[in-house]
Amino acid sequence: MTSALASLTELIRPQLAAVEDLFHSELSSDLKCVNTLVKHVSRFRGKMLRPCLVLLTAKAVNPTGQLTADHVKLATVVEMVHMATLVHDDVLDEAELRRKGATINHLRGNEAAVILGDYLISHSYHLCSDVDNASRGLPSQYASRLIAKTTNDVCSGELLQLDNRNNLDLDEQTYLEIIKRKTAVLTAVCCRLGAAFAGGSEAVTEAMELYGLSLGVAFQIQDDILDLVGDAGSVGKTLGIDIEKGKMTLPLIHFMRTAPAEHQALLRSLLSEGGAADRAEKIRNLVIPSGSLQYARDRARALVDRARGCLSGLPDSEAKRVMDTMAEFVVTRPM
Amino acid sequence: MTSALASLTELIRPQLAAVEDLFHSELSSDLKCVNTLVKHVSRFRGKMLRPCLVLLTAKAVNPTGQLTADHVKLATVVEMVHMATLVHDDVLDEAELRRKGATINHLRGNEAAVILGDYLISHSYHLCSDVDNASRGLPSQYASRLIAKTTNDVCSGELLQLDNRNNLDLDEQTYLEIIKRKTAVLTAVCCRLGAAFAGGSEAVTEAMELYGLSLGVAFQIQDDILDLVGDAGSVGKTLGIDIEKGKMTLPLIHFMRTAPAEHQALLRSLLSEGGAADRAEKIRNLVIPSGSLQYARDRARALVDRARGCLSGLPDSEAKRVMDTMAEFVVTRPM
Repeated sequence: MTSALASLTELIRPQLAAVEDLFHSELSSDLKCVNTLVKHVSRFRGKMLRPCLVLLTAKAVNPTGQLTADHVKLATVVEMVHMATLVHDDVLDEAELRRKGATINHLRGNEAAVILGDYLISHSYHLCSDVDNASRGLPSQYASRLIAKTTNDVCSGELLQLDNRNNLDLDEQTYLEIIKRKTAVLTAVCCRLGAAFAGGSEAVTEAMELYGLSLGVAFQIQDDILDLVGDAGSVGKTLGIDIEKGKMTLPLIHFMRTAPAEHQALLRSLLSEGGAADRAEKIRNLVIPSGSLQYARDRARALVDRARGCLSGLPDSEAKRVMDTMAEFVVTRPM
Repeated sequence: MTSALASLTELIRPQLAAVEDLFHSELSSDLKCVNTLVKHVSRFRGKMLRPCLVLLTAKAVNPTGQLTADHVKLATVVEMVHMATLVHDDVLDEAELRRKGATINHLRGNEAAVILGDYLISHSYHLCSDVDNASRGLPSQYASRLIAKTTNDVCSGELLQLDNRNNLDLDEQTYLEIIKRKTAVLTAVCCRLGAAFAGGSEAVTEAMELYGLSLGVAFQIQDDILDLVGDAGSVGKTLGIDIEKGKMTLPLIHFMRTAPAEHQALLRSLLSEGGAADRAEKIRNLVIPSGSLQYARDRARALVDRARGCLSGLPDSEAKRVMDTMAEFVVTRPM
């Protein structure tokens, strides 16, 4: 997706470069040990999807307007928030690894990761409180309030997910609530902020927020599908992690609701097993022939269609076309 | 200190009760699993020192004025920030414990603690962005910007501390930098916010900030002294933790600089040892007869005197007297 997005985001290249610069300058410290750790963060850097959403939405909402320093700040803020969640997720993942044999080095890295995540989130709020909301006629703490509300939701989503780890009876509604809070509220706020700071009306801003929310949920469902049936080479990361982490995803949830009783019992027993090497393979062979994978694909497709529909009220522009393509890309990407 | 503080803080009892209420209502969630975890946080609740500093400073700066809803909000914000640091410190401490034998229960608790700390800090920023800065003639995002700057510093202090774990050659200047960032910038901002939101002039607000900073540094030095030589019964918590965690504290740092070479070598070897049961006892017996304990006490005393001096420009009031007593209490407390 990195290269595909690169061509999609040509339109906002100078601003994305400015986001990179601001990201690094805001996080730089008078302490060498802090800078060393912050450097490690860059290994997580990737698609910059969230900054792209801020900047593209602003351009799509107001194609003749200029992107401002505040857009760059906000795009940097959401990237910092996203990085903070990745760093803390990494702590949780490393915890899993440690379950199978801790080393002190891992542990020390973990402690640093907890504080580093805190450092990132703190700097995101700090930068956000420097945005000039009034210049756009917005309430004086509009962006800060929204970003903090968003991270409130992200944390509650993470806690809800943790509470449902190894819950093989997780229902679809709770699953959707988890991924909405964990992933989609952040992509939603990216689009809301991009629109509001481009002078979008409340109706347009709400439509953009719904675009971001729909895109985020679709993105996460597709991630879940790929984790189950993707090709590790194309996707570019280790797969089968959800099963290892005891996370029920949409195809499995649907299967547990609709498959014949003996198939349900078989999946239940496979999911309850320890990490046998061929477990993921067996689960794939069980679920792929069922209708559950297609069900999940249909759900993601419907969300992408809803996202694309949210763009209908916008004037025609290059940015609008890119946002349309990005939505489509969520379900067609090999990632 | 809880009971001693209780009588000291009689003056602000209704506001402290309001802080407790706001703390709980802000953190309450539509998700049961979140509320269950938030309840666990209350086991960390204690002295409410930081909310007291906000409220008492406001009263001392403007003895005839009324404390406002914003004072209560700010007092709740700093308590949430403090609780978040405690929860994440607990993650780091539990990590230590796990080093000596992990259980999955510990691990699961740890993961929840990472997210719970994030939940607390997120809600603190959310509440802070609801404060009416303009009503006091302050810049529109004054409190949010200050709080985020403070947490930036706290995180960098934690990282600096982590970087110097097991560094037996830690110098006094770096040690003071660590405790200033880790502890004192938060008590400093409590007093600055209390003063600024009570309409204090910039000169008075700066004096109050220095009071809070001096108090915080003195508090941490005294904590270090008690961790080394306190009586566990009086102090009310496990002692000798700093040594176990590889944290050099002021008495030890001074000893390593001034004691006879053979004593220094002995301390170095004791500190490098694993956790032999009588190690802390041996270190105590080595350091107590030296001048290093008294040196640390003198440093804490000088800081308390500086804090008390910061109050000299304030009009006479009950709140001012309480703040004076609180400063004195930092070095006389048996805790």
